[in-house]
Amino acid sequence: MLLPHFRAFNMSVHVGSLFANSGLSTSDPETESVDQIALFATLLCACIVIGHLLEKAQWINQSITALLIGLCTGGIILLTSGGRSSRILEFQEEFFFIYLLPPIIFNAGFQVKKKQFFRNFMTITLFGAIGTLVSFAIISYGATLLFPKLEIGYLEIKDYLALGAIFSATDSVCALQVLNQEETPLLYSLVFGEGVVNDATSVVLFNAITSFDLNNMNTTTALKFASNFLTLFVLSTLLGVFVGLLCAFIIRTLYFGRHSTDREVALMILMAYLSYITAEVFKLSGILTVFFCGIVMSHYAWHNVTLNSQVTTKHTFATMSYIAEVFIFLYVGMDSLDVEKWILIDSPKKSIMASAILVGLIMVGRAAFVFPLSLFSNFIQKNENEHINIKQQVTVWWAGLMRGAVSVALAYKKFAGSGQTIQPANALLITSTITIVLFSTVVFGLLTKPIIRWLLPDETDPSTPNSSSMPLLQNGHDHDHDHDHDLEVENGNNGTSSTRPSLKMLLDSPSNTVHHYWRKFDDSCMRPVFGGRGFVSHATGTRDMGEIH
Amino acid sequence: MLLPHFRAFNMSVHVGSLFANSGLSTSDPETESVDQIALFATLLCACIVIGHLLEKAQWINQSITALLIGLCTGGIILLTSGGRSSRILEFQEEFFFIYLLPPIIFNAGFQVKKKQFFRNFMTITLFGAIGTLVSFAIISYGATLLFPKLEIGYLEIKDYLALGAIFSATDSVCALQVLNQEETPLLYSLVFGEGVVNDATSVVLFNAITSFDLNNMNTTTALKFASNFLTLFVLSTLLGVFVGLLCAFIIRTLYFGRHSTDREVALMILMAYLSYITAEVFKLSGILTVFFCGIVMSHYAWHNVTLNSQVTTKHTFATMSYIAEVFIFLYVGMDSLDVEKWILIDSPKKSIMASAILVGLIMVGRAAFVFPLSLFSNFIQKNENEHINIKQQVTVWWAGLMRGAVSVALAYKKFAGSGQTIQPANALLITSTITIVLFSTVVFGLLTKPIIRWLLPDETDPSTPNSSSMPLLQNGHDHDHDHDHDLEVENGNNGTSSTRPSLKMLLDSPSNTVHHYWRKFDDSCMRPVFGGRGFVSHATGTRDMGEIH
Repeated sequence: MLLPHFRAFNMSVHVGSLFANSGLSTSDPETESVDQIALFATLLCACIVIGHLLEKAQWINQSITALLIGLCTGGIILLTSGGRSSRILEFQEEFFFIYLLPPIIFNAGFQVKKKQFFRNFMTITLFGAIGTLVSFAIISYGATLLFPKLEIGYLEIKDYLALGAIFSATDSVCALQVLNQEETPLLYSLVFGEGVVNDATSVVLFNAITSFDLNNMNTTTALKFASNFLTLFVLSTLLGVFVGLLCAFIIRTLYFGRHSTDREVALMILMAYLSYITAEVFKLSGILTVFFCGIVMSHYAWHNVTLNSQVTTKHTFATMSYIAEVFIFLYVGMDSLDVEKWILIDSPKKSIMASAILVGLIMVGRAAFVFPLSLFSNFIQKNENEHINIKQQVTVWWAGLMRGAVSVALAYKKFAGSGQTIQPANALLITSTITIVLFSTVVFGLLTKPIIRWLLPDETDPSTPNSSSMPLLQNGHDHDHDHDHDLEVENGNNGTSSTRPSLKMLLDSPSNTVHHYWRKFDDSCMRPVFGGRGFVSHATGTRDMGEIH
Repeated sequence: MLLPHFRAFNMSVHVGSLFANSGLSTSDPETESVDQIALFATLLCACIVIGHLLEKAQWINQSITALLIGLCTGGIILLTSGGRSSRILEFQEEFFFIYLLPPIIFNAGFQVKKKQFFRNFMTITLFGAIGTLVSFAIISYGATLLFPKLEIGYLEIKDYLALGAIFSATDSVCALQVLNQEETPLLYSLVFGEGVVNDATSVVLFNAITSFDLNNMNTTTALKFASNFLTLFVLSTLLGVFVGLLCAFIIRTLYFGRHSTDREVALMILMAYLSYITAEVFKLSGILTVFFCGIVMSHYAWHNVTLNSQVTTKHTFATMSYIAEVFIFLYVGMDSLDVEKWILIDSPKKSIMASAILVGLIMVGRAAFVFPLSLFSNFIQKNENEHINIKQQVTVWWAGLMRGAVSVALAYKKFAGSGQTIQPANALLITSTITIVLFSTVVFGLLTKPIIRWLLPDETDPSTPNSSSMPLLQNGHDHDHDHDHDLEVENGNNGTSSTRPSLKMLLDSPSNTVHHYWRKFDDSCMRPVFGGRGFVSHATGTRDMGEIH
């Protein structure tokens, strides 16, 4: 193919080369790839250090730092290599989906404030599922209308639909780094939850589009499509819950902690990954699965392990997710200067034009569902505190404008991976994707903090260190508060549980009542079996802890 | 080549396939490889759980459990696949050297009792370097004499030398799982330290043999070889120390912990790996580098991070190393039934014969240096407590008889990887290698506990949970004791440091005096710059800790 190196990033080459460099054999390309790994590791370290130094700047965050460092490195490589290439590693969308995405999503589920998440579960699902479909439709349709004017070459209907799916995949990492889970729990859980469901939806949508025969689309296929969609959602969720409970059960029954902290940690990590890969084996959405696996693990398994394991797992998951994120943004930054793609398209201007159109469509497509759905959810949500006011709606709208690694990965898959040769039109779509990701992450990302501070001045306090660029640690900390929080709620409910909740109460705050019954069920049936807060003594943990004091 | 799949384990295939299974594209081989990953992950979990359940059996340990599970799985696959293959993944020696070995060695350095290690540094180096060379010579020479009798086909001198290098690489993991660092510190540090230096030596030796032109070996080349050897040792060590100090300095200066635990952890992990890969880039011994990097990190950097990070890093490194070990033994077990190699050799009997000869040579070769070198070290070591009595010598001899993943990896590299086609003779050497690894790990491994208990009844107490199969957690625990230990020694020395150490004192216990001066230097120059115990306040750490209480 024209871009043979698209597939070139392949472990055995790297690894082989690395070993080769320990002297067993030597050849130039191999030597290169060791240097590549080393250089990449160095850059990751640099991102961490520089990201830490730039922390003081309220408006910058880790993702942007990584992107910019990637850009600079790409530029340097471009110059040194005499304009041949701007990249250290080739992007392998599969690599991203197998190794980088799972830790991020799992950690998300592991650290999310469960109560808030489930309280707004319906709204989140609305935004994530329906919303994604809406913006998908709008972007696809808009592209179909506007792209022909650009004369970028022929694109078939499938390509337009793929574009819709690609650009309905939001990347709310930036926004989450700004939103504070403590101060704006509702917003945080909305943006965050939507992001996860959205990831799943758009990937599923994309797969469906590329696999289904859309040229003769009729009601039956449409229904089949919809039903597939739903089954996939349900099954993926159930699988995740199952694996999480299994892990909790094993750890609780075998009581590893008594002997080995490391074994507990290893088991949790392996089973988390197992849930993802199993989902993939059964062609389910690994993202949804691993997300719910994370939620269940943090609710049950996490309480069954020693205190040491709790600290370790909490920070290990956060760290893995952190590294994965930095890795992705660093790569995207480096990749954006890749010349091979730019020279393939007849004029960069067209690419910019296309990007501009798409950005516009993204903003419209998002507006088209955020505001209506918010009104709808306000309408059915009786509880005033759970209402989403206009400023919050704008924030939610803004927070989902960023496009990230998922889009890039999907774009590569569709426009670079599939064919043996890459059409100029496809190359243009790839460059546009990268431009959009770059633009939205940097520009929108930089604007996010000021805008949110302007929209929600009373709610967010920029001076708190928490609101600086450490979503992971922040989540990590909140994790504990979260549990305390749960506990309070628990007591609260126990207080009210003497008076049976009336139908009125159910109508007033359905989610609360559901939550109330869930608690009762959880305490009476689940926790006794699977452990969880208050059902496991931390004796061992505390002993272990003694050692590091 | 005859065994094309030897190179077949390549990330992009797996990853691609995994992604494929999320629906983007589908083809059978790909579907297989997802199932492979999933199955492998499941097996790893199984190893952990079963290993935990078998813990009560005093004579079994994690490695053997993994090996046996691997064997069983291999057998099942062999039956189900109708004798086609017995393996889930193909062994990629590079994969082992890049991803599995570094965490093991780094964790080894990170958790080792530094004081004991440096106290016996000279003895350890003797055993590791000279000893390996001796056993290398004996095995090579013995093979040259005995193998022709087997009529296994033509082997050139290089092959015999390679054999020597391959089988002088000990695998003391099993022994370390039995030896207790607390009860027999001298033995533990000897066996362990030798293991590390030995790994480095044999790999370096192997590389030298395969790269040097040995047919016209003369004094100049021999000298060149020796000097290369030394430079490599020194440079690798220095690089490791440098990276470790750099990491400590960065963390101490930037004081990440104030903001982000995860950033500290990420930085430590990345820099540890960076040290290994940099060593490989400069064609040094990554093993030595990462080992010393681990020592330095645990001595300085580890004290500069928050309490949370300390717990996390300690257990994360241990866990990664633990998973890597299980992975390796699991694989070797599965691989040992691989038919392709067995059918290539004209008679399995010959392979068994060859294995028997090699095992004999291994035992002789090891005896040939353990006992003389022990006597020598006793002779120059004035301090009676540091003397190695005969029983301990036997233990050391026995502890180094196991052969493990390094041997397998080197064997594949030499006899399967290098050529396009695989000679029957080479196939035989591979099968023999696997047989030896299997035999030594299982049989010698099972005998190790009884033998050591019989040899050192007073020193080891089998009833302590520590002496069961958890070298990592055990190390993890000892790690802290180790530091306390260091502290005591520190005070001890401060006590004696009022009286200047006389020449007699130096002659009596040179290592002690060196250690004493090192402490003075460490406290006055190093720690003020790089941090370390007592030079960093744990205020932040303790605050963080508050949260998980």
